Amino acid sequence: MYTTDTIFQDLPGANGFYGQSILKVAQFDRDHLTYVMALGERMRDVVKQQGGLDILKHRVMTALFYEPSTRTSASFIAAMERLGGSVIPITQGVQFSSVSKGETLEDTVRTLAQYADSIVLRHPEIGSAQKAAAALTRYNVPLINAGDGAGEHPTQALLDLFTIYDELGTLDGITISMVGDLRFGRTVHSLTQLLLGYNVKFRFVSPEILRMPLSITNMVRGAGKDYEETYSVQDVIGDTDVLYVTRVQKERFSDLEQYEELKHFYVVDETLMQQAKEKMVVMHPLPRVGEITDRVDDDPRAAYFRQVRNGLYVRMALLAAVLTER
Amino acid sequence: MYTTDTIFQDLPGANGFYGQSILKVAQFDRDHLTYVMALGERMRDVVKQQGGLDILKHRVMTALFYEPSTRTSASFIAAMERLGGSVIPITQGVQFSSVSKGETLEDTVRTLAQYADSIVLRHPEIGSAQKAAAALTRYNVPLINAGDGAGEHPTQALLDLFTIYDELGTLDGITISMVGDLRFGRTVHSLTQLLLGYNVKFRFVSPEILRMPLSITNMVRGAGKDYEETYSVQDVIGDTDVLYVTRVQKERFSDLEQYEELKHFYVVDETLMQQAKEKMVVMHPLPRVGEITDRVDDDPRAAYFRQVRNGLYVRMALLAAVLTER
Amino acid sequence: MYTTDTIFQDLPGANGFYGQSILKVAQFDRDHLTYVMALGERMRDVVKQQGGLDILKHRVMTALFYEPSTRTSASFIAAMERLGGSVIPITQGVQFSSVSKGETLEDTVRTLAQYADSIVLRHPEIGSAQKAAAALTRYNVPLINAGDGAGEHPTQALLDLFTIYDELGTLDGITISMVGDLRFGRTVHSLTQLLLGYNVKFRFVSPEILRMPLSITNMVRGAGKDYEETYSVQDVIGDTDVLYVTRVQKERFSDLEQYEELKHFYVVDETLMQQAKEKMVVMHPLPRVGEITDRVDDDPRAAYFRQVRNGLYVRMALLAAVLTER
Repeated sequence: MYTTDTIFQDLPGANGFYGQSILKVAQFDRDHLTYVMALGERMRDVVKQQGGLDILKHRVMTALFYEPSTRTSASFIAAMERLGGSVIPITQGVQFSSVSKGETLEDTVRTLAQYADSIVLRHPEIGSAQKAAAALTRYNVPLINAGDGAGEHPTQALLDLFTIYDELGTLDGITISMVGDLRFGRTVHSLTQLLLGYNVKFRFVSPEILRMPLSITNMVRGAGKDYEETYSVQDVIGDTDVLYVTRVQKERFSDLEQYEELKHFYVVDETLMQQAKEKMVVMHPLPRVGEITDRVDDDPRAAYFRQVRNGLYVRMALLAAVLTER
Repeated sequence: MYTTDTIFQDLPGANGFYGQSILKVAQFDRDHLTYVMALGERMRDVVKQQGGLDILKHRVMTALFYEPSTRTSASFIAAMERLGGSVIPITQGVQFSSVSKGETLEDTVRTLAQYADSIVLRHPEIGSAQKAAAALTRYNVPLINAGDGAGEHPTQALLDLFTIYDELGTLDGITISMVGDLRFGRTVHSLTQLLLGYNVKFRFVSPEILRMPLSITNMVRGAGKDYEETYSVQDVIGDTDVLYVTRVQKERFSDLEQYEELKHFYVVDETLMQQAKEKMVVMHPLPRVGEITDRVDDDPRAAYFRQVRNGLYVRMALLAAVLTER
Repeated sequence: MYTTDTIFQDLPGANGFYGQSILKVAQFDRDHLTYVMALGERMRDVVKQQGGLDILKHRVMTALFYEPSTRTSASFIAAMERLGGSVIPITQGVQFSSVSKGETLEDTVRTLAQYADSIVLRHPEIGSAQKAAAALTRYNVPLINAGDGAGEHPTQALLDLFTIYDELGTLDGITISMVGDLRFGRTVHSLTQLLLGYNVKFRFVSPEILRMPLSITNMVRGAGKDYEETYSVQDVIGDTDVLYVTRVQKERFSDLEQYEELKHFYVVDETLMQQAKEKMVVMHPLPRVGEITDRVDDDPRAAYFRQVRNGLYVRMALLAAVLTER
C-alpha cells in the first residue's frame, strides 16, 4: 500500500518536474527517465492493489482537446481521477465555442489556467503546445502536450519506453525493429530519440516511400548507434527483442490507391510470430486496422494492450510529479 | 446511515453479480431481481439521507455512448459519482475519433478496459453489447449494456420493475396495461419478460399496426399468464394497477403521415385518470411528446419522474454489485 | 484553513440562498451581495491554501449547456469539483439527444433534477432559465442561470462586482467607464444594475449605434446616479477607476461591413494606459478579439484574467450557499 507520504519515497533518478510543462521528449535525460519509470511502476501497484490514491485531491486538470482522441483523453482523465483529482473535460467541440469567437489559443489556456492546476492540450498544429505553455509562465500551471499535430506526443513516447522496460526488465542490450510508416509515424520518431540514451540496436523496416526521415537516422548515426534499414521484416524478425508496429495513416495520403497498396504491406500474424524470439515483445500505438491480426492477441508476446494500460501509469506518474512539490 | 461495511449486509435474494457484465434481462432470475430491488431501496436511502457513499472510491467507469442519450448517460454518471467513483465521459462524438480511424468496437472497449473498472456501452447495433463484453473476457472489466439498438436495455427494464415494486409494494397480483407503440417499444418487451416471473395480468393496448410482436405474446402465453390485446384504453383502465405508456417513435416510420395519425392515438389526460383506480401507477420511459398531458403531472399517481429517479438507485445498485467483491 | 464547519462562520450580510434558484441580478440586494462577496473571498483562500474543500461531497451538479460556452461551463465544473462535489457534464450536443426527440425544456430539467442536486443551465432563449426553474418547484433542486440568450447571466455580473471590490477594496465612491458595445453587451447591463446599490459614477463610452439602451440609462437616472455618455475614451480615462471593456459581437450584425468598422473602434493599448490613473482596473468579460492589446497584459492594472479566476470563487460561493442548509 502506498500513501500520499510514501509514494515518492526513495525513488531513483532525478525529479525536478514540479511546476514544469511536459512538451517534448528532449526534456528528459536518462535520470529523469529512470525517475518516471520507477514512479510509473509504483502507480501500477497503486492501481492494482488499491485502485488509486488521494495525492491530488481537490486539484483540477483541464483536458483541452482541439481534436478528439478518445484513447489519449480517456487515459489522462482516468490518471487524474485515480490520483484523487478532478477533471474539466473539454474533449469535444472546443471549436464551436470561445475559439469560434476568435479567441487566441494563448487567451484560451490563460483562461483555463484560472480554474485548473494543470492543462493537458491536444492541438492539430505543430508548436501549439510550446506556444500555449509560454502563455502560462506567470500562472504556475504546467501544461502537458498530448500531441501537437506532426510535432510531439511525449507521453506516448514515455509509455512506449516504460513498456519495453516493464516487459524486458531493461532498456539496454536490446534490438528494436520499427515496422510500417516510419515517415509520418510520430511515435517511432519520439521513441527512437528517447532510446538513444540506452544501448539499443535499431532496425527500421518500411516501404521506400515511408522510410525513416533523415533527421532521425542522422541522430541515430550521430549517437553512434547500430542501425539498419530494410524493406523486409524477414530480415530482422529472428533477432528482434521489440517489434514496434505502426499503422499506415490514411489521412497522410492524397493518392488513395497508394494507401490501399501500402496499408497492409506488413501484417503481423501467427506465421511471423513463429519466426520470432520466444521473449519478443510486440507493440503498437493503436488503433490498428489490420497490421496485427486478432489471432496474435492470444500470444503472450502481444504487449499492445498492456502498453495501453502503461499509458495510465505513466500519466499518473507525470501528473503526480508536476503537481506535487517535493 | 449506510456505510461501505453495512450497505450489502443481510440482503435478500441472490447476488453473484461481481465481475459480471449486465447484457440482457434474461440473466436475472427472481432471486437476482429480489437482490437488486432490495439493494436499490438501500441506495435510495443513501441518496436521501447522505447524498452518496464511498464504496467505489478510486474506481473508474467509462460511459461509452456511440449515440447520445442524455437521460441514460446522466443517470449512470450520477450513479457512479454518488458511490464515490469517477467517470470517463465519452458521451458525444465518439464517431469522430478512433472509430473513424477504422478501429473495431472490440479494440475500442479493450483499450478503455485498460483505464477503467467498468464500461457502460450504448451502441446503435443490436448485439454490440454482447460482442463488446466477449472482447473483455480476459480483463475482469464488466460491461453494462445501456441500450444496443433494437436489442436490449436491461437497466431500463430493471428500473421499471423497481418502480412497480416501490409504488405498489409488490409485484404479484397486479394488472399492468401497456399502451402505445408495443411493436418497436423495447422497454415494454423487456419489462414483460421480467414480469413473467411474477403473478401478473397483461393488457396490451395499441393500434393494429403497433401490436405487441408474436415473439412476446407467445412467451406470455407459454408462461401461462393472463393477457388480452385491445385497441381501447377504455376497455382496461378500470382494472389497471400499472398504466405503462410509451411514445410512438417518429424514427420508426418511413411514412410520416402515418406517424402523425398515430402519435397521439392515446393521450393520458385528467378525464382518463378519473376512470382509473385510486392507487393506479402511471409510468412512461420518457421522453414524452404529448402522450401524457402536463396536467396529469400533479396527480399523485403520476410516477414517471419518480421512475426516472429510480433509474439512479437501480444503476447504483448494479454498479456496486458488479464492482464489489463480497 | 477553512473546514466544512468554519467556512460559513460569522459571514457578514444576508444568506437566505439555500434551495434558491439564481436567475437574475435583481434577486440580490446589498446584504446578499455583501454575503456573496465575503464568501467568495473565503473561497479564494480555500483554493489558494488547500485547493478545495469537501463541503459538497456526494452532491452532484448537472451542467446543462444548450449552447457551448467553454469558459462558463469550465468555471462551474471546477467550482463544484473544488467543493468536493461531482458533475454531470452535458456541455456539448444536447440538441442531438432527448431534445431532438421533441422533449420540452421543462421535462428535460425535471428529468435531470432526479439525478442531481442542482442544475446549471445555459440556453439561447431569453426567459428559459425562469421557465426551467418554475418546472422544478416540487423538487428542491435549485437552478443557476448561466446565461439565457439576451436575458441574464447573473454569475457573470456577480464576478464582475467581486472583481471591483477585490481590486479596489470598496464599491463606493468609484467611477466606472464602460466601453464598447453597450447595446447588446449583456454583462454591462447586469453590472450596471448591481452597482446601483452603491455610490458609483457611470461613464458610458460607445459609438452611436451601440449606445446603452434607454431602459438602463433610465434606471441609472431613476436611482439618482451620476452618469455621462460619450463617444470618446479620452473624455473619461483620466478619472476612471474601473475601465470595463467589451467586445463588439460579430453575431449581432447583419451588415458585416459595419461590424468591421466598429470592432476596433476602441482599443486599449499602452498609450491609453499611460493616461489612466495609477490604480485603475481594466476589466473585460472575455474573449477579446483585439480590444485590449497583449502588451497591456503585463500592466498590473490589467485585471481581466484575475476577473476570470474570480468567476471560480464566486461560483463556489453560490454553489455552496444554495446547496448547504445553514
